[in-house]
Order: sequence, then structure tokens, then C-alpha cells
Amino acid sequence: MKGNIVVGQSGGPTAVINSSVAGVYAAARKLGVNKIYGMVHGIQGFLQDNLCDLDEYLADETGIELLKRTPSAFLGSCRFKMPKIEGHEDVYEKVFEIMEKHDIECLFYAGGNDSMDTVKMLSDYAAAHNKPQRFMGVPKTIDNDLPITDHCPGYGSAAKYIASSIKEIIRDNESFGVEKPTVCIVEIMGRNAGWLTASAALAKGDDCSGVDAIYLPEKTFDMAAFMDKVKKLSATKSSVVIAVSEGVKIADGRYVCELANENVAVDAFGHKQMSGTAAYLAAEIAKETGLKTRAIELSTLQRAANHLASLTDINEAFQVGHDAVLAAEEGKTGMMIILERNGDDPYQCGTSAYDIHEIANVERSVPAEWITEDGCDLNDGYEKYARPLIMGELQPWFSNGLPRHLVRK
Amino acid sequence: MKGNIVVGQSGGPTAVINSSVAGVYAAARKLGVNKIYGMVHGIQGFLQDNLCDLDEYLADETGIELLKRTPSAFLGSCRFKMPKIEGHEDVYEKVFEIMEKHDIECLFYAGGNDSMDTVKMLSDYAAAHNKPQRFMGVPKTIDNDLPITDHCPGYGSAAKYIASSIKEIIRDNESFGVEKPTVCIVEIMGRNAGWLTASAALAKGDDCSGVDAIYLPEKTFDMAAFMDKVKKLSATKSSVVIAVSEGVKIADGRYVCELANENVAVDAFGHKQMSGTAAYLAAEIAKETGLKTRAIELSTLQRAANHLASLTDINEAFQVGHDAVLAAEEGKTGMMIILERNGDDPYQCGTSAYDIHEIANVERSVPAEWITEDGCDLNDGYEKYARPLIMGELQPWFSNGLPRHLVRK
Repeated sequence: MKGNIVVGQSGGPTAVINSSVAGVYAAARKLGVNKIYGMVHGIQGFLQDNLCDLDEYLADETGIELLKRTPSAFLGSCRFKMPKIEGHEDVYEKVFEIMEKHDIECLFYAGGNDSMDTVKMLSDYAAAHNKPQRFMGVPKTIDNDLPITDHCPGYGSAAKYIASSIKEIIRDNESFGVEKPTVCIVEIMGRNAGWLTASAALAKGDDCSGVDAIYLPEKTFDMAAFMDKVKKLSATKSSVVIAVSEGVKIADGRYVCELANENVAVDAFGHKQMSGTAAYLAAEIAKETGLKTRAIELSTLQRAANHLASLTDINEAFQVGHDAVLAAEEGKTGMMIILERNGDDPYQCGTSAYDIHEIANVERSVPAEWITEDGCDLNDGYEKYARPLIMGELQPWFSNGLPRHLVRK
Repeated sequence: MKGNIVVGQSGGPTAVINSSVAGVYAAARKLGVNKIYGMVHGIQGFLQDNLCDLDEYLADETGIELLKRTPSAFLGSCRFKMPKIEGHEDVYEKVFEIMEKHDIECLFYAGGNDSMDTVKMLSDYAAAHNKPQRFMGVPKTIDNDLPITDHCPGYGSAAKYIASSIKEIIRDNESFGVEKPTVCIVEIMGRNAGWLTASAALAKGDDCSGVDAIYLPEKTFDMAAFMDKVKKLSATKSSVVIAVSEGVKIADGRYVCELANENVAVDAFGHKQMSGTAAYLAAEIAKETGLKTRAIELSTLQRAANHLASLTDINEAFQVGHDAVLAAEEGKTGMMIILERNGDDPYQCGTSAYDIHEIANVERSVPAEWITEDGCDLNDGYEKYARPLIMGELQPWFSNGLPRHLVRK
């Protein structure tokens, strides 16, 4: 590559999105790229010419290693949606103007569905206007809902954090065995796809009885059936722990969290800001049964808890960033790097570049065949799929008793 | 010691209460105690003769090491309050009957204020009725509110988890820098004492700007001043993160969480079950300022997150259990083991046995001289006190990608 490159991060951060930046950097350094820029706050910052020079942070190996151990978006993120091209050519021209100004040949963008739309729009614009610049997508989303790719970097670490935390929550909830049952509802992220909530199933093992039920947004939520299940469970168990997706909906299409609060806030992409599903359900259970209840929202820690990240996930996040650079070096553009599983025992995963048009704006749900018949649990198909993704650890670097992070100056 | 011993766990579990059981076991094994029993579900289970033989789990070193890595109460806990002696002699006689049945010479009880009351009542009863059995308290509480002792085992690990999680929350909250500010309210446990909330101050370092304000229950909560502070902070910062104790009260004595929900549930000790302070404050901020807000409750993970426990805490929890046995061997009874700080640089801490009457039912608050003048931060006095308590890690034993725990059969 003769020109420079830039890498950006977009959308909700993950525990390993910085490993993808590290992978882009490492590959580009090996290729002898002159300047490796980072966008500060994604395409939104880029439009304001807000760049940093990654050599400043990553030139030595400790920088890369510390970046892998740093959660959230090191470069800063954004939720900026590229406008329709028609009537907004100025926005697109601005991107190319800044790229030309810094002699940037290729732009790498790490993100989920909405961010891949940005890659698609920019590469479409380049194609339509004979621009030489190239655009590559680097998958990242705890939601695991990108299509085509076997899974998404970020998911394994979120799943590891969720399953580990749920194991701890179950142990805590089980400690008061002789009193009347405590019903604990754990709310897990995932607006439309239940991948994160499904990972609660991974808590189960020979040292943990696991959660008692799992409610995914893939299935319509039936309040009466839910209440019935809680009553049956609490009749025989002193501890009941249930995992619920923030995105569960009742039959009329309303989210359960909207039943408590009709005025749910909406973000730049029109997505509702979810919260309160567990609190609502816990209150309803207490009201109807008199049982002690507890509502726990795992909240942003699901995507930020780098201290419990999966090493498999960190390595794959690095790999997709790394391989995006190799693909761009081969002249590819308008593509996203996907993960392809080559084997389960032992688990093996490779990458390839895939047309972004097949990926952007498509959401992948948990396959119906992995959900048990009663809709409240996952079967071995999911276990086989997900378990390898949470394997391995990268010990944080502790200083002053806390995990150390790399920060921009 | 000629007779057998029994150890029990009581009250809210911690990440390291099992290390105290390990310490009791290790010391008793060294002394050649014949049977080392565990009470299943504390004194409540003991009254039903529900015991287990700890040799079954801890006879080899891997058992003890795994127990140190297991959160919550391995033996099961309870919230059973011993009744007044007068009129309830049968309950007390039952305890001694079961002790005699199993030839138990000494009872060790790990817990906080309420549990130390159990130790006091039982040792008082023994003294009044010339019973030879001895009773020793082993301090345990994430709340860190026991008097006399420098600090309480369980606190350091909770503080480490809180400070680490808050660092991750701050990084997450800072990622969207170019949009309008997000105000994140983090609710931390602590009904009357602000020790846990104070630990949010430890997040600050040269890689983290720290939280923007800390509200402890030691100070009356002023809603107008709070709102004013939020407005000032959000006028200049793109990310505002505020730590609030679940136990903050307004001037008329009501808890902030009661402002949202008047019907707060009450436990066996008459303690209100707290929840919803952050959600209430976040909603009020959104209403008044239109800012994006997020409410995070760290919830039971504060006390259950053994995967991020402090090694200092684990070792001290072990030590107080161990030294309780040595004190009992010397014939002591009606005492609790306290931690005595002997030095700050390097940090050193020893133990001694202290009269339980001075400890039971007394709550220690965060000293006023460690709280800054505006009431919204902690000063170096707290930093010097608390930092050593979160130092060091004990890597979990991972199996199938998750921290492994020891469980009762």
C-alpha cells in the first residue's frame, strides 16, 4: 500500500473492539504503511478532521498489549448515520476530501449493522464516482447479529462475562436456602436478537445448576405463561434465577419494558433505549406471589468488562482487523471480514472478505432449532456453537489494584 | 482442643467469606481437631441439626484453593436473628444440645453486625448458665461497618470490583464524545454506611478521570444541589458518571429510593430492601435537563464477584478464620477477631481477639474527615486507607471458559 490508512470505531463499544484496532495497526505496520491514523469518534469525528496518529500509542509492543486489555472504544465511537447520498453529496465529498488531504488510501471501520451501512454507502459512492479509495468493514458487535459471519467479535467476551456473572448471581441467590424463595430476574442486552441472553445458558455445568428459564426476543413473551412458570419453579426451589432479554415483546408488539414506562427514549438510529424489563417483571411477581424478588440489569458492563474478556474473542477481533488490511492490500473494497468456522473439535476459525451489500442492515437471530420446545432454554446446538467462543483468558495488567487501560492523550 | 468445632456463615455473602471457612479449617486441621463441621445455612440450619463434614471437601489442598475462589456462602447463609433470651431459653438450649450431641467445643460464626449479635447472645447465655462451649466471631461484611477492626474482610474485594467496574463504565460512557452528554448514575450498596460507595473514588488514576461526584449516606442528600451539580458538570463534560449510595436520604429522613416507591420491602432484621435510587435520579435528570441518562445498579455482583477478588482480602479473610481458631484454642470466647493495621508503607496488618460486646450492633460510618467539604468526594485519607485493601489478585480456576466453584453435594 502506497498511501496511508485510517481506522475508526463505531456504535456501542465492546470489550475487544480495541483488539481490532490493534490488528489493523499490526498488519499495516508489517506492510510498511507510512501513516496509520485513528478516527477520533468514528466517521463523525473524521468529518471534522479529528484524527490521531496510532504510532504515538502503539509503536512498541506494550502499547498493543495494553490496547487489547482496554475496553470500550479507545478512539472514541459515534452513532452517526450516513445520510442518503442523493441531496447529501457534500457529506460524502467531505469524507473523500479529508482522505485526500491525509493521503488515505483505505478506511477501516469496526462496527455492527449500522456501521457496516456506513462502509457500504462510502464504497458505493466511491464506485459511482470513480474514486480510488477503498473501504473495509471490520465486524464488531456484542449483539452477534451480523449475518454471514459465523459470529461477531465482541460476542464471546460479553457471553463470558454474562455466564460468569450469572454463575456468581446464582451462587449468591442460593445462599439463603431456608427462607422463602427469592426470584431473581436478570436483564440482558439484545434489542431484537437473543444471542446475549442465550449465553446465560452457558452458566450451567457440574458446579452450577444454571438459570431456570431464558426468555429471548425471538419468542413472543406471554406474561401468564411466565408467571405460571415462576410459580411452579418457586414451589420446589429455594432459588429461582431467570434470564430475560431487554427486548422481549408481548403479543401486541410492545416491549415488556414499555409496559412500565411508555415514554422510552430513542437514539439516532431510531432504536428504543431499553431498560426496566427485569424491574417490571420482578415487581409483577412480587405483587402476584408475595415472593421476594430481585431485578438485576447487567447493563453496559456486558460490553465493557474487558477484565473478563475471552482470549478467543480478543484473538479473533485482532485477526479480523489484521485480515481487513491484507484484503485491502489485495485491492478489495466494499467488503467486511467474516469469521468462518472450520471445525468444532478442536475449534478452528478462519477469515475471508465478503460483499458488504449482503451484510449491512441485515440482522441475524438465534436459530429456532437451538431454542427448546417450551421456548425457555437453549439446546446442545447452541452450547456447541457458543462454548468455544468464551474459552481462554488474557490476564489484565493490574496497577494500583485495578486493571490498567490505554487512554488517548 | 479436645472436642470438635463447627463453623457457620451468616448474613449477606461476600466474595471471600469462604476463605474464612478455609482459614478455620486449616488452623483446626493443624491443631488436630477431630471433626470440623460446617453449619448448613448458619445458625438457622444448625438449630435443625443441619451439618456437613468439611473433610469431605477440604481434605486436600485443591479443595481449600478452590474454596478461596468460590463466591457467596459455600455452607449456605441465613438471616436468622437470635431471640431475646428471656422467654426463649428453648432456642438457646437447642443450640447447646446440638453442640453436645456432636461434641462441639467451639462455634465459629462468620458475619457482620447482626451475626456478631448471635455470637454475643450465645456466649452470654453460656456464661450465665456455666456452659463450657466457646463462641468466636469471624468478621465478614462488604459494608465494612464493624467497629474496632481496621476493616472487614469482604470489603476489599467489593471495593476492587466496584472501582474496576466503574473504570469500565467510565470508559464506556466516554466513548460517545461528540454527542450530547450522557449522565450515568451508578448505584452502590450500603444502607447506612458509605464505605462501598466511597470505593468509587479508587477508580481515579492517571488512566482514568474518575467519577464526577460521590454521594454517601453519611451526608444528607439535597436534590436541588445534586441537580445543580449535574447541570454544571454536563455543561462542560461529554461524559458524567456519578456514584450514589443506595442508602442516601433526603432531609426529612426518607430514602431517595422511597421517593420512587413508597412500599419498600423489609427483611427479617427490619432492614429496608433498597433498589431504584439510580433509576429515580436518572429519570429526574432526564425530566429536568433532557439529557441522556443511564442508571446502573451494581447489585449483588458487588458481593459475589469473586473472579475479581482482592488477594489481600482473601488472605485476610483466611487469617481471621485461622486466628479465631488459635484464640479459641487459648480458651477465648465471646470475642471477634479484629484486623489491626501496623503500617501503611508497606501495608501491614495483624489480628487480635476483641470483646464481642463492644462490636455487636455497632455500625461504623466513613469518617467525616475523609469526605471533602462539598460532601461529594473522598480525600487522600480514604485513598491511603482503602488502596492497600484492593491490592493483588488470585486468578480464578477456569474450566469450560468460566470461573470454577466448589459446591456442596
